[in-house]
Amino acid sequence: MSHSAIIPQSLVWKNAFLEILDQTQLPGKETYISLYNPEEVREAILALKVRGAPAIGIAAAYGLCLVKPDQDSELDYIERLEEAYQRLSTSRPTAVNLNWALKRMMRVLETLSSDISPVRIHQALIAEAERIHEEDKRLCQLIGENGRSLIPDQAHILTHCNTGSLATGQFGTALSVIYHAHLQGKNPHVWVDETRPLLQGSRLTAWELMRAGICHTVITDSMAAWVMKKKKVDIILTGADRVTQNGDTANKIGTYALSVLAKHHGIPFYVALPSSTYDHSLSHGDDIPIEERDATEVRSTGNTLTTPVSSPVFNPAFDITPGRFITGFITEKGVLYPPYEQSLPVLADTSEK
Amino acid sequence: MSHSAIIPQSLVWKNAFLEILDQTQLPGKETYISLYNPEEVREAILALKVRGAPAIGIAAAYGLCLVKPDQDSELDYIERLEEAYQRLSTSRPTAVNLNWALKRMMRVLETLSSDISPVRIHQALIAEAERIHEEDKRLCQLIGENGRSLIPDQAHILTHCNTGSLATGQFGTALSVIYHAHLQGKNPHVWVDETRPLLQGSRLTAWELMRAGICHTVITDSMAAWVMKKKKVDIILTGADRVTQNGDTANKIGTYALSVLAKHHGIPFYVALPSSTYDHSLSHGDDIPIEERDATEVRSTGNTLTTPVSSPVFNPAFDITPGRFITGFITEKGVLYPPYEQSLPVLADTSEK
Repeated sequence: MSHSAIIPQSLVWKNAFLEILDQTQLPGKETYISLYNPEEVREAILALKVRGAPAIGIAAAYGLCLVKPDQDSELDYIERLEEAYQRLSTSRPTAVNLNWALKRMMRVLETLSSDISPVRIHQALIAEAERIHEEDKRLCQLIGENGRSLIPDQAHILTHCNTGSLATGQFGTALSVIYHAHLQGKNPHVWVDETRPLLQGSRLTAWELMRAGICHTVITDSMAAWVMKKKKVDIILTGADRVTQNGDTANKIGTYALSVLAKHHGIPFYVALPSSTYDHSLSHGDDIPIEERDATEVRSTGNTLTTPVSSPVFNPAFDITPGRFITGFITEKGVLYPPYEQSLPVLADTSEK
Repeated sequence: MSHSAIIPQSLVWKNAFLEILDQTQLPGKETYISLYNPEEVREAILALKVRGAPAIGIAAAYGLCLVKPDQDSELDYIERLEEAYQRLSTSRPTAVNLNWALKRMMRVLETLSSDISPVRIHQALIAEAERIHEEDKRLCQLIGENGRSLIPDQAHILTHCNTGSLATGQFGTALSVIYHAHLQGKNPHVWVDETRPLLQGSRLTAWELMRAGICHTVITDSMAAWVMKKKKVDIILTGADRVTQNGDTANKIGTYALSVLAKHHGIPFYVALPSSTYDHSLSHGDDIPIEERDATEVRSTGNTLTTPVSSPVFNPAFDITPGRFITGFITEKGVLYPPYEQSLPVLADTSEK
């Protein structure tokens, strides 16, 4: 089976611009939009048109490539790059890949000799962004290959949010494991948490699985516990937005609940991530900033206002799952098990944060 | 403070018809609709225009009163009543109050002498339906009075679905406890689970709390665990659709998850119900039929289709919370504690099922 036939591309670099699949339009419309400058990339990230920790990092890296050298002096160009870097780096606070990718891009400047022209700097930045993108695709493939042995034949897998091609360069993280189990002929069935408030599960993961011909069933988040109890769930797979030294993991709101429920029902709970999601500067999850998003996301469902406008709303985009509730981390370097203080540092060698 | 100013009425008997507040239109529109025959009542129950176990029972009782005596012979009239009874009793399978109320209505026929006219039977049925309605209001008030001592001053209470005036004759069950704590000046704050798929929490409970001036915050169901961990939750209160001898409780999907999460976080978990919700014919929850509803409820949010149309969906309307996860049952006869096989039978004395 050809991968390209079933695996969508969330972003494509077109030199003059960055083309992204507008994820806010799915599953109704498959709309591609062109971003011509860093501010448009920032707005696309803010509006979740591009989302998923690795994809945000890639988009931000290309965002710096959209600072065009024009007729600038080198100094002016670098000043504009640094301005774009600041704007992009603050677009979302929780995902660590964003700053990882941006810092990696800015380090390119240091490696170049000081009298190099803006045009050559620009070329070097494009090459670096493309490397970040290609590396992410390769890492996602390795995550899938490393994780598929954890999946039994005919497995029932429960997943949350979207961790697929739409969230990464290709294949995804947790969804890459599912794609690879499927490509291996293991015929998995996936319980898809719809993932309120923004429904990345029902809108995006179900769309990817449908495209790929992978058997799945959509449920509301409140049904996951009942499915664990009354139906079959062999394994739970999620992605991550940031992982700390002790394995504490920031991920989409609802992940923490799943980890507690998994423990109660004796179901293995795995988190899939590339090295760039590991933040070896933090010892535990309490240090991770949690983005709170606009109340409208909870007050509305689809395009309908479903809560009294004067009712207060709490809308954290992420929660922290304690490392001790996580059975293992599926990474491009293999599956890592507790104690995480000892196993996770292998991820820091290449992430160079 | 006047109750009537803040407590809405979900249904009002108008003799020629039954007037109900169409709950599917809330919180956007406060629309009252008139039901003129049992089939319209059945359809309103099926479409959740009237919902909540006690309110469904009351609506069904009035539904039998909408079988008008006309020029019928007694035999013809009773035949039409029995037909309406069958139609109404199958409208929703999980809530036990529905059949409890309908059976109680039909027992009125047995108490009447055999040569009584259809008009007199009709009058007796209306009187019985009004008694069921008034009794429910009184029971709800007692539930609130019995439960309010469990609520500390300034308590943070988490609740699920709608268990308020909209779900009952008045005041509600779990929400009656909250109303009464509020009326007592305890100044509670309520975390309101939005309760997907039909959003009875954000649409109905938030609307009731807003009307009553009770402090509250709406969250998605997936946030409840995180709120338990990072914010303050002193007590969890839910309603019930059916309770069995060992305390196993059918309630809105998502309740089971909350009970597991409450246990993990050491938070007391109480279920509020009138006697009529206790089913002493069943020894445990496995015997309770679980209604599965249409996939469209999960596929759509508000009026927007948010899941690929070809993606399969699982949509159980209820789940079963094991009695052993329930701290206590708040009833009109007091708060009942384990062992439930010994404490719950007090509820059977008057429910006469």
